[in-house]
Amino acid sequence: MEFSQMNRAEQLALLQELRTEYEKEKAKGLSLDLSRGKPSPDQLDLMNDLFDSMDSSVDCYTEDGVDCRNYGLLSGIPEAKRLFSDLLNIPEENLIVAGNSSLNLMYDTVARAMLYGVCDSDRPWCREEEIKFLCPSPGYDRHFGICESLGIKMIAVDMTPTGPDMDTVEALVATDASIKGIWCIPKYSNPDGITYSDETVKRLASMKTAARDFRIFWDNAYAVHDLYPDRHDTLADIFELSREAGNPNRPFFFASTSQITFPGAGVAVMAASPENLKQILPILAAQTIGFDKLNQLRHVRYFKNAANIHAHMQKLAEKLRPKFDLTHEILERDLIPAGIAHWTRPLGGYFISLFVLPGTAKRTWTLCKEAGVVMTNVGATYPYRLDPDDSNIRIAPTYPDLENLEAAMCILTLCARIAALEKLTEEEGA
Amino acid sequence: MEFSQMNRAEQLALLQELRTEYEKEKAKGLSLDLSRGKPSPDQLDLMNDLFDSMDSSVDCYTEDGVDCRNYGLLSGIPEAKRLFSDLLNIPEENLIVAGNSSLNLMYDTVARAMLYGVCDSDRPWCREEEIKFLCPSPGYDRHFGICESLGIKMIAVDMTPTGPDMDTVEALVATDASIKGIWCIPKYSNPDGITYSDETVKRLASMKTAARDFRIFWDNAYAVHDLYPDRHDTLADIFELSREAGNPNRPFFFASTSQITFPGAGVAVMAASPENLKQILPILAAQTIGFDKLNQLRHVRYFKNAANIHAHMQKLAEKLRPKFDLTHEILERDLIPAGIAHWTRPLGGYFISLFVLPGTAKRTWTLCKEAGVVMTNVGATYPYRLDPDDSNIRIAPTYPDLENLEAAMCILTLCARIAALEKLTEEEGA
Repeated sequence: MEFSQMNRAEQLALLQELRTEYEKEKAKGLSLDLSRGKPSPDQLDLMNDLFDSMDSSVDCYTEDGVDCRNYGLLSGIPEAKRLFSDLLNIPEENLIVAGNSSLNLMYDTVARAMLYGVCDSDRPWCREEEIKFLCPSPGYDRHFGICESLGIKMIAVDMTPTGPDMDTVEALVATDASIKGIWCIPKYSNPDGITYSDETVKRLASMKTAARDFRIFWDNAYAVHDLYPDRHDTLADIFELSREAGNPNRPFFFASTSQITFPGAGVAVMAASPENLKQILPILAAQTIGFDKLNQLRHVRYFKNAANIHAHMQKLAEKLRPKFDLTHEILERDLIPAGIAHWTRPLGGYFISLFVLPGTAKRTWTLCKEAGVVMTNVGATYPYRLDPDDSNIRIAPTYPDLENLEAAMCILTLCARIAALEKLTEEEGA
Repeated sequence: MEFSQMNRAEQLALLQELRTEYEKEKAKGLSLDLSRGKPSPDQLDLMNDLFDSMDSSVDCYTEDGVDCRNYGLLSGIPEAKRLFSDLLNIPEENLIVAGNSSLNLMYDTVARAMLYGVCDSDRPWCREEEIKFLCPSPGYDRHFGICESLGIKMIAVDMTPTGPDMDTVEALVATDASIKGIWCIPKYSNPDGITYSDETVKRLASMKTAARDFRIFWDNAYAVHDLYPDRHDTLADIFELSREAGNPNRPFFFASTSQITFPGAGVAVMAASPENLKQILPILAAQTIGFDKLNQLRHVRYFKNAANIHAHMQKLAEKLRPKFDLTHEILERDLIPAGIAHWTRPLGGYFISLFVLPGTAKRTWTLCKEAGVVMTNVGATYPYRLDPDDSNIRIAPTYPDLENLEAAMCILTLCARIAALEKLTEEEGA
């Protein structure tokens, strides 16, 4: 029976029962982590050949004969550009192949805009009275962290099943010239796993913005991260649509192999229009002597072509699918009958976004923590860590093994039910 | 006979003779590069075991069991901190072990000060009307490039055999609060190869500065880069002297393995006082998900301890010494009798700084170029590329092999003599 259809006596009896169960779980002294989108060790082991992919003593030259051990090739080695060009369907000349962190590229891109402006700016953004970014929420805490660190005001915009609420986005950017950017994870979004519809991408590319130098920060972190061999989302081409709409400079594109090879030692890329790159590259030349080309070469030698990356992603998906399936199974078993939660069923990416009974996410988190299960901080998926409904919990099922995942998920659903009953009965939590 | 002691007829006759020689050299169609401080391939080959130093499939864990393939450890892995701590005599807790480029750390440190200020600032530097840096000159073009890119006004200060002209430095920083920094390569400076005297370091550490948030950018790029086994310079400890003088936050320290292992794929470090790091690390956490820990681990596994790095540097020195010796030999043979030039004789580092007859550096450079020898751009060693004396030419003898180095050096000294005679006779260059 759904909790809301129970009378108070029934609710209190069930709460008592679940609390007894909770005390038993707590006594086990578990220590489980569902908080970060980290691959598991056995996922990483699929890549063990990466470092044996080249005999580095002799095989350290690009196809043009450049020694990757030495200085040079600021924007990346040609064969790495070709590989990412094939994988992401972006012309090589629009790509920068960089170091190990796309977050670093994103932060630097925003910081650069603050210090220099972008190619369409009248002045550096730090010379403006105020800079604002739109933040589709729930979203990625580290995007919000960049804004918070740099003093950029964040405006939360609701996520819908087709992407950000575009009516709100369009209305805001049309009138407020201090809104200079929007954060987007357009495919298998973090945390909802939503892929923007073609209509949404088109509206983003073509909407009128009061700021001439408005930018879309297009973090395509899960571009090739499908979970199923037969079903997957497709994403419209933001560059093509922006060009067609007369806004060729609008998108800044980011991606990385963090969830393809190694989170800590992969290769990140960014892409932008020629006019953007013409402004960025001389600044990049002042900033760094160049990125680690040997690591770029290692990735190229290992994968050789985009088809092999896709094949590798299917091997990863085989590791991830049982974890996602198990998570859904436990959520359905424990929370559907209670009628207190809904969640997303993404076809790719790294997360499941759980919405518990409004007003109970924090309490659920605390109960989990006391029972030894660490969840992503409640609120982390919203600007300034403020979930207006106190409802969203990001589940990252990739890191634990199946046994630990099951134990953690059972505690999560137990805690969500306890918190809901506490709320409904207005019983103070223990 | 020195050129200045010849009469005009003798000068013209010699000029004619040298021009004939030059045309012969030019006809050879050489293509030689003495412009950048790049290691030669055979130097890099000394490091070929670096990538075989760990079996990465099993050996990817730190001593604390952290998987270096995955996220985590923002400020570097513990064993890498210990290695650099031993090598540089800096406490581990003051170190950040980072990616492959110390220039990137330097640019980011200046950019961060512009956007946030440093820990002693009243406001971000970009909110000040003007920011100025002192630039001991000749110096490193990429330091100057950072200032130029970020709109920081550069004030050239003369280099002396004991470091920057400290009377001038002290007078400037004492009165002008907009002077926020000074660039220093304190050991085997680029390009002069000068090591700052203890007195200079002490004065830098203790001088009164009008800006409370003044910073020394201490780029110790050649900390362990001695050329001779028996003679080497020693450098006073900037951190210790700054602490003693009551200015513990003044130095920002940088170093890298770019000229130890691989320029393009080494490991860079920075160091600063605890108060500085307390400000920097949260910003760094917003900027990046972390640096490439596998490359840090690779370096640790290969070297194991500081003594092995010193031993490796002696092997490198054996490759470099003949090149420096040959360069000096040719300079002495060709330019001492002419009396038109002087140069430095560093005990370490990567460069020899040649001062040709004032007013002839650019002409010498052009003559070299037309004969197929690329030298570092004249002026590059000065802020805004302006050598007030048109005299300094940076020689980077490390990259070519001995045969090519000899050919290039002979052309350089030939061109320097031709340019000097043109100047002395006021004969227009061809």
